[in-house]
Amino acid sequence: MQRAKKKYMEFKALNIAEFLHGTIEGDENVSVNNVSKIEDGKPGTLAFLSNPKYERYIYETEASIVLVSNEFKPEQTVKATLIRVEDPYQAFASLLDLYEQGKQLKSGIEQPSFIDSSANLGENVYFGAFAYLGQNSSLGNNVNIYPQTFIGSGVIIGDNTTIYAGAKIYDGSVIGNNCIIHAGAVIGSDGFGFAPKPDGSYKKIPQVGNVILEDDVEVGANTTIDCSTMGSTIIRKGAKLDNLIQIAHNCEIGENTVIAALTGIAGSTKIGRNCMFGGHIGVAGHLTIGDNVKVGAMSGVSNNIKSGKTVLGVPAMDHEQALKSFVVFRRLPEMRDQLIDLQKEVTELKLNKQ
Amino acid sequence: MQRAKKKYMEFKALNIAEFLHGTIEGDENVSVNNVSKIEDGKPGTLAFLSNPKYERYIYETEASIVLVSNEFKPEQTVKATLIRVEDPYQAFASLLDLYEQGKQLKSGIEQPSFIDSSANLGENVYFGAFAYLGQNSSLGNNVNIYPQTFIGSGVIIGDNTTIYAGAKIYDGSVIGNNCIIHAGAVIGSDGFGFAPKPDGSYKKIPQVGNVILEDDVEVGANTTIDCSTMGSTIIRKGAKLDNLIQIAHNCEIGENTVIAALTGIAGSTKIGRNCMFGGHIGVAGHLTIGDNVKVGAMSGVSNNIKSGKTVLGVPAMDHEQALKSFVVFRRLPEMRDQLIDLQKEVTELKLNKQ
Amino acid sequence: MQRAKKKYMEFKALNIAEFLHGTIEGDENVSVNNVSKIEDGKPGTLAFLSNPKYERYIYETEASIVLVSNEFKPEQTVKATLIRVEDPYQAFASLLDLYEQGKQLKSGIEQPSFIDSSANLGENVYFGAFAYLGQNSSLGNNVNIYPQTFIGSGVIIGDNTTIYAGAKIYDGSVIGNNCIIHAGAVIGSDGFGFAPKPDGSYKKIPQVGNVILEDDVEVGANTTIDCSTMGSTIIRKGAKLDNLIQIAHNCEIGENTVIAALTGIAGSTKIGRNCMFGGHIGVAGHLTIGDNVKVGAMSGVSNNIKSGKTVLGVPAMDHEQALKSFVVFRRLPEMRDQLIDLQKEVTELKLNKQ
Repeated sequence: MQRAKKKYMEFKALNIAEFLHGTIEGDENVSVNNVSKIEDGKPGTLAFLSNPKYERYIYETEASIVLVSNEFKPEQTVKATLIRVEDPYQAFASLLDLYEQGKQLKSGIEQPSFIDSSANLGENVYFGAFAYLGQNSSLGNNVNIYPQTFIGSGVIIGDNTTIYAGAKIYDGSVIGNNCIIHAGAVIGSDGFGFAPKPDGSYKKIPQVGNVILEDDVEVGANTTIDCSTMGSTIIRKGAKLDNLIQIAHNCEIGENTVIAALTGIAGSTKIGRNCMFGGHIGVAGHLTIGDNVKVGAMSGVSNNIKSGKTVLGVPAMDHEQALKSFVVFRRLPEMRDQLIDLQKEVTELKLNKQ
Repeated sequence: MQRAKKKYMEFKALNIAEFLHGTIEGDENVSVNNVSKIEDGKPGTLAFLSNPKYERYIYETEASIVLVSNEFKPEQTVKATLIRVEDPYQAFASLLDLYEQGKQLKSGIEQPSFIDSSANLGENVYFGAFAYLGQNSSLGNNVNIYPQTFIGSGVIIGDNTTIYAGAKIYDGSVIGNNCIIHAGAVIGSDGFGFAPKPDGSYKKIPQVGNVILEDDVEVGANTTIDCSTMGSTIIRKGAKLDNLIQIAHNCEIGENTVIAALTGIAGSTKIGRNCMFGGHIGVAGHLTIGDNVKVGAMSGVSNNIKSGKTVLGVPAMDHEQALKSFVVFRRLPEMRDQLIDLQKEVTELKLNKQ
Repeated sequence: MQRAKKKYMEFKALNIAEFLHGTIEGDENVSVNNVSKIEDGKPGTLAFLSNPKYERYIYETEASIVLVSNEFKPEQTVKATLIRVEDPYQAFASLLDLYEQGKQLKSGIEQPSFIDSSANLGENVYFGAFAYLGQNSSLGNNVNIYPQTFIGSGVIIGDNTTIYAGAKIYDGSVIGNNCIIHAGAVIGSDGFGFAPKPDGSYKKIPQVGNVILEDDVEVGANTTIDCSTMGSTIIRKGAKLDNLIQIAHNCEIGENTVIAALTGIAGSTKIGRNCMFGGHIGVAGHLTIGDNVKVGAMSGVSNNIKSGKTVLGVPAMDHEQALKSFVVFRRLPEMRDQLIDLQKEVTELKLNKQ
């Protein structure tokens, strides 16, 4: 098969050193068009050395440029061009940021696309081909709407928000500033609500609420967030949701809470702020989870959790307790055999006594 | 960030009371444009009081209108306009239904869209922009196809069915009347079937069957239903599937069975009617699950289940039994310590006896 | 509701026998337009009899044509036309293959679609309506891009690869030859990487890597594969991923490894070749899983696994051990009662001794 890498612009060591206020050792004209980890650096890439544990790699790396600290003293010959800076990791991060900022090159309305005549667009918007913007919806400034995105009626999208290809935003959703919504995510689909009828079939309960994403929220690829039955399903400021997550109707996810992939939160559950949820977790409906709660991957939460707790397991319990129970679980067959042996011995002792 | 709510039409208390055959107490000209729960009612919304437990909220609510029963006697001053009806919950539900019916305003073919010349459209169809309708496919009457939906070749879609934005219906799928398919759902993708080859690689087994959704089926956002290898994967009348569910090839889901999010059903498993499956359940392949079976969230079903059973756990067992085992599981470390103590005591008793 | 089947071309027994080098018994002019299992064969379909266990069905089947072995001797009257071949299953499989090859009838560029002027298309490409091909991207020969697919900038797609409707391929992805990507799959979304800030909020770590799919990879519907932070997330040759799977940033999935639906692999984990993963599995980050490893459905893998192992459970342990522990788990309440009884008996024995 063919191999390729993302095409980046080329930068010379000279320009990078200038941007970072660093000093060069080696060929100042060598150029790079990508980054790499020092341990698997390839020609044409830039790496950094921050953790002294990785020092040995600097003598082997094929990376063309390595950012090192002003204090770094090589013990062997280094093939790469070095750029000396105060904090190599920070310098590297600032280069990545620069790259990210440089990426947002697109703007304007690609054709064909569909923008309802009653919709409102801010300044410097990118609106991709085959994207759809419904009645009375509005986009803030510097918004990027990638191709094939659906935005229904009465949707409000704040400034600097990016929605990747093919995400679907149902009617009435409200999305804040600086949000990122990944491809295939669905915001505002109907909550899963049905009333049983006497004949065993179900009547759909109309879901007339909406979804609100506050500022700085990130929603992963193919994640689904249902609208509330009434009122709003709310994802608070700074919350980060990974891929393939289900947030059911009427939920609230607190500020700066992060949730890993394939986790599902059932209806009407409120999760506090600064929580960390692992992947593949199930949380039952109508629960209240406090602030700063940590839930281990693959847990099943069936009760409220107080702030500050760390839990694990199905059903979720104190994390330390769960780890101990897991250890014993592996030895259950052995324990059962020991118990049977004991029963025999005790029976024998009782018989002998008589 | 900006905040907004869905924009609804405004209704006066007067008109609502007339529609519900109710009687007004208070300002008959107050108007509402949304609904709310009584406990968090806001001005401009309509709430209802049905459960006496919630009575205290009627004295605090900011809702502009509250539906109450003819018998309700307020014990304090009520700020809201009251509309007295026989059954406030039913009256509220009928208002929601009215709202839902009013929502389906769109019809006609938005442009640009793609309709194969051999395709067939019923009357009063909405076909959104960037939607695709393949060869020899047909849509019934009153069908709503939202933008960016893909409908392959030889697909039949019944009357009154709604398919939301970006759902993908593969060739040969058959979808009944009154179905709802949410955004991003995929119907008819290839079953996961491969035959191992001597060199360790796999040969794809062609999946030439299809998917049939009978009438009144709802399919959640980003749920996937694979076509059968031969014949049909079938979702029976009235079944309701939540978001992010996987139904593998050759499965059959029985009438009025409901399945919550992130559950996966492996190939060739048949599930009976009126079952209730929680979220995050895994069901192994080639099983038969009876009617009226309940499976608790996060269970792993590895054996057939008889009709009427309620099961829980991994692997799934009788529900009561599982709950009891869960309780003991938490105390396993303690139990192990007790067992070790007993072993010592018994050894001592035996030694003393000698 | 209306019922329909996929529309296939009609074939006569005569033509099928000729293609298979088989001999006909019965009406050589009977025609079929679909296949079926012998146990639920319908008129107009072709079935096969390979396993002698199923012989009784050949006397009842409604299938119009049945493939049987040269040796087969009917014990009762058979209604169907028989075609005798050396190996009925192989013959059936070759008919399915023929059908599959015949299916790829589409080619050419449907309109409207979006192809950047800098993009490159091979020969005999199908590019569906509303599909998008970004800057400097290239498609190999015989590539099928279904409608509404998004292909970003700098993407390379090899020969004979098919991407179904609405899949989203982010910038810089590299996709090999003979790959199949199902509807709604997302390739190259941002890895889930955030650095905590002192105020409890998170700073996004730019994800500048890409995704590489080698040759012969299949990716299921709505599966998500994140790009790496730096370098590449890699799916090796011949790996098969089912629906709704999450592959996080910097992962590597080995050659010919198959993974069932709803499984999630956390960041930087490397999985070896020829592994088999069941459904609903969670694998923690930064692990190394060897070759030929089998992981049972619903397991949680929290440690490295050596080549050749079979594991099960949460946390995953040796498969046999897990099955034994599962058995004891069901009897935990009973075991606890036995333990309490023993404690009483031992206490009594000790008291009596004194």
